Amino acid sequence: VALYATTAAVRRHAELIADAEAAGHRVDLVSDDVMAAMADTVTPQGLLAVCRLVDVALDVVVAGRPRLVAVLANVRDPGNAGTVIRAADAAGARAVVLAGDSVDVHNPKCVRSTAGSLFHLSVVSGVALADAVATLRSAGLQVVATAGSGQTSLDDLLDDPDTALRLPTAWVFGNEGWGLSPDDQGLADLVVRVPIYGQAESLNLAAAATVCLYASAFAQRRANSP
Amino acid sequence: VALYATTAAVRRHAELIADAEAAGHRVDLVSDDVMAAMADTVTPQGLLAVCRLVDVALDVVVAGRPRLVAVLANVRDPGNAGTVIRAADAAGARAVVLAGDSVDVHNPKCVRSTAGSLFHLSVVSGVALADAVATLRSAGLQVVATAGSGQTSLDDLLDDPDTALRLPTAWVFGNEGWGLSPDDQGLADLVVRVPIYGQAESLNLAAAATVCLYASAFAQRRANSP
Repeated sequence: VALYATTAAVRRHAELIADAEAAGHRVDLVSDDVMAAMADTVTPQGLLAVCRLVDVALDVVVAGRPRLVAVLANVRDPGNAGTVIRAADAAGARAVVLAGDSVDVHNPKCVRSTAGSLFHLSVVSGVALADAVATLRSAGLQVVATAGSGQTSLDDLLDDPDTALRLPTAWVFGNEGWGLSPDDQGLADLVVRVPIYGQAESLNLAAAATVCLYASAFAQRRANSP
Repeated sequence: VALYATTAAVRRHAELIADAEAAGHRVDLVSDDVMAAMADTVTPQGLLAVCRLVDVALDVVVAGRPRLVAVLANVRDPGNAGTVIRAADAAGARAVVLAGDSVDVHNPKCVRSTAGSLFHLSVVSGVALADAVATLRSAGLQVVATAGSGQTSLDDLLDDPDTALRLPTAWVFGNEGWGLSPDDQGLADLVVRVPIYGQAESLNLAAAATVCLYASAFAQRRANSP
């Protein structure tokens, strides 16, 4: 909608500013003091854009027949949620659903953690986990929950020649502190654990999500190649 | 060496305190004010332990014939380094080498990000990247660097029936901002990229490291199972 830039940023990002103007966006020059007052960070980068909200309805997402979706259930930390959105984008997921009491995707720290990925895939908010799972399942995606106590190891899924990993999948990840409740795990078709081979108690949320999403991405691509 | 606890923490972690005392460790009760002055965090958890430094010499590490090692080259952010140490532990790596100008593993934020994993595997510090690579290679590990511009996709390695991923491997990860320099990449036997299937410019360091380390862990375990 609008772009604000300090003189230093205009000099540093001349090409970006020119692109924005050429695309018909309004660009306003502001002083360092004004930028500091507008920005959320302690040391602003000198560029601040006003954007439209990115929420998309889940019905619109499933109409696009996605093959890989990440669902975050009650994930509260904005940095974690943003990092998962970035990893989901990298792994080729089409959407991330922030279900239940998950953090708002427009939280400034979440926005920054996505490194732009919130504009690359669809982000769905304000939907209960059970409703999200029901909608995704009826759109043909299997629903795979992750939990440290999951009966199936991700490793076993990789070994399966008819691995379910190649099927369209919605991965469900729980809160960074307490994971997925038994009730929430019960909503899934399968509860998978990322195996821990060392002595770590667990992986952090973003690391576990990245391993799972890439496992699906690799398996789906292998299944579809000649 | 010593454990300091507030009264609230003693009540909350009675079993842990008892274990520490039974193991012969000194436990001192401190006021909230003293804890606040000793601790690095804004809201201390009420427990503070004094520990010995964890550095181990690389020669000691390779004498243990490790099959999976992570090398961080000039990784500056303590949270990133700690998160990689935690992921390396989870994936069963035996050691993490903080090479070149990497952050000190004893940095408080790094310590916290490891979630205890700095005590589970060996951490090597104060070694130049070229020296670390030479020592690891002569100990029989292949050296695989990661870079967004890497000629080999991790996906192609997975597809290789004689995949090099099953061999003892030292993964080299570069700085979170600018990656590995061409010279540093040149030290490796192979330069691999984690494929980006969506529109993300890159994965963050810890996410990329986790995917690579788990790819090795899965392949090594599959190679060793009947």
